[in-house]
Amino acid sequence: MNPRGDTWMALFPPLAGLPEAERGMLATRAAAAALPAGTTVFEPQQACGAFLFVTRGSVRVYQLDQDGNEIVLYRLGPGSICILTTMALLAADRYSAYAVTETEVEAVALPGPTFDDLMGRSPRFRGFVFLAHAERMADLMRVIQNVTFESIESRLAARLLALAADRGTLSITHQQLAAEIGSAREVVSRHLKAFERRGWVSLARNRIEVRNAASLRGAAGDADA
Amino acid sequence: MNPRGDTWMALFPPLAGLPEAERGMLATRAAAAALPAGTTVFEPQQACGAFLFVTRGSVRVYQLDQDGNEIVLYRLGPGSICILTTMALLAADRYSAYAVTETEVEAVALPGPTFDDLMGRSPRFRGFVFLAHAERMADLMRVIQNVTFESIESRLAARLLALAADRGTLSITHQQLAAEIGSAREVVSRHLKAFERRGWVSLARNRIEVRNAASLRGAAGDADA
Repeated sequence: MNPRGDTWMALFPPLAGLPEAERGMLATRAAAAALPAGTTVFEPQQACGAFLFVTRGSVRVYQLDQDGNEIVLYRLGPGSICILTTMALLAADRYSAYAVTETEVEAVALPGPTFDDLMGRSPRFRGFVFLAHAERMADLMRVIQNVTFESIESRLAARLLALAADRGTLSITHQQLAAEIGSAREVVSRHLKAFERRGWVSLARNRIEVRNAASLRGAAGDADA
Repeated sequence: MNPRGDTWMALFPPLAGLPEAERGMLATRAAAAALPAGTTVFEPQQACGAFLFVTRGSVRVYQLDQDGNEIVLYRLGPGSICILTTMALLAADRYSAYAVTETEVEAVALPGPTFDDLMGRSPRFRGFVFLAHAERMADLMRVIQNVTFESIESRLAARLLALAADRGTLSITHQQLAAEIGSAREVVSRHLKAFERRGWVSLARNRIEVRNAASLRGAAGDADA
């Protein structure tokens, strides 16, 4: 971190309204952390105890079923905080979620006691943390809506578009895509082959090229990627 | 409430550890509320602002999809607090959840400012609220696991056993059962008829009798009702 140690706070607009003394606590007691891609930030039964502000990169939060299949719950990017690390201190045994860095990630870690100190003294900081809780609850509700009510095809089309973004090509296995949308690999492969027959995508080993984004958007409908 | 106004707190063991002054705040500023069955406690875009401690009865929290189908997220019984009412103040527009009393419900309502006051002054109260957040997040993760990974049959068997409890008979429509497990009425009816053919249940109009709980338990497997 820079000498003053608070430039990272610009990524978290709600922190701008904190009184100077509280910004000072954050600046002096938080520590920068760099995590290589593939680092487990959180897993069941293991609480980390520090409160993480993500400043660069992406953390994937997902669940596993008994067969080891993944379903992605949400992603944390710059400007996000990881509420599971602190909640796990209270209810670690109740979670089935994992959080793993999917790129190199830079974060700022606030020790548990400082987090609790700020929660006690700062209504603004509390508001900030509660808003993050509310957003993650909303994320989980969205996942439920997706997996329950929307067809595999619309979810798959929406997710392909979101993952391909502007590049048009994505490097991903059918197994990984199945994890993204909460389905099985076989089901995803079958739908991808149907998409290919219609000229919407081209399939190669671990690679999917989007050839007709407009048709995929049509199929995606209201599905939330 | 009784004159002293704090007997309800016995239903919330974490509150027993609060200092006398904080228990006093709860006792004097909270107000008893009686809600008839079918009362909407919370709905999208509408925040109630009070923090609710449920002392009797049951509140069903669920989502609706675009076709108006329900999926039950969790239930709040005696000893539960309703975190959505307070979080909605921060992020009401992000939620798609409804909360409706499914029996007559008695609750104690704490005004928003008193809630925030206690959050600021009481680490124990904060811990209590965070634990409730953690539990509801875990509930949503369990719903995701259920709808994503488990077969309709095992979910249906598990839910029938849970709803029938010791009575052996339940009054419920196939549509309501479908909402419980996040499926469609037609799918549920088909599976119920299969259960009936195997002698596991008897079906009548809006009524299901469990005739072979052991077989249902076998089908339920690890499904979490």
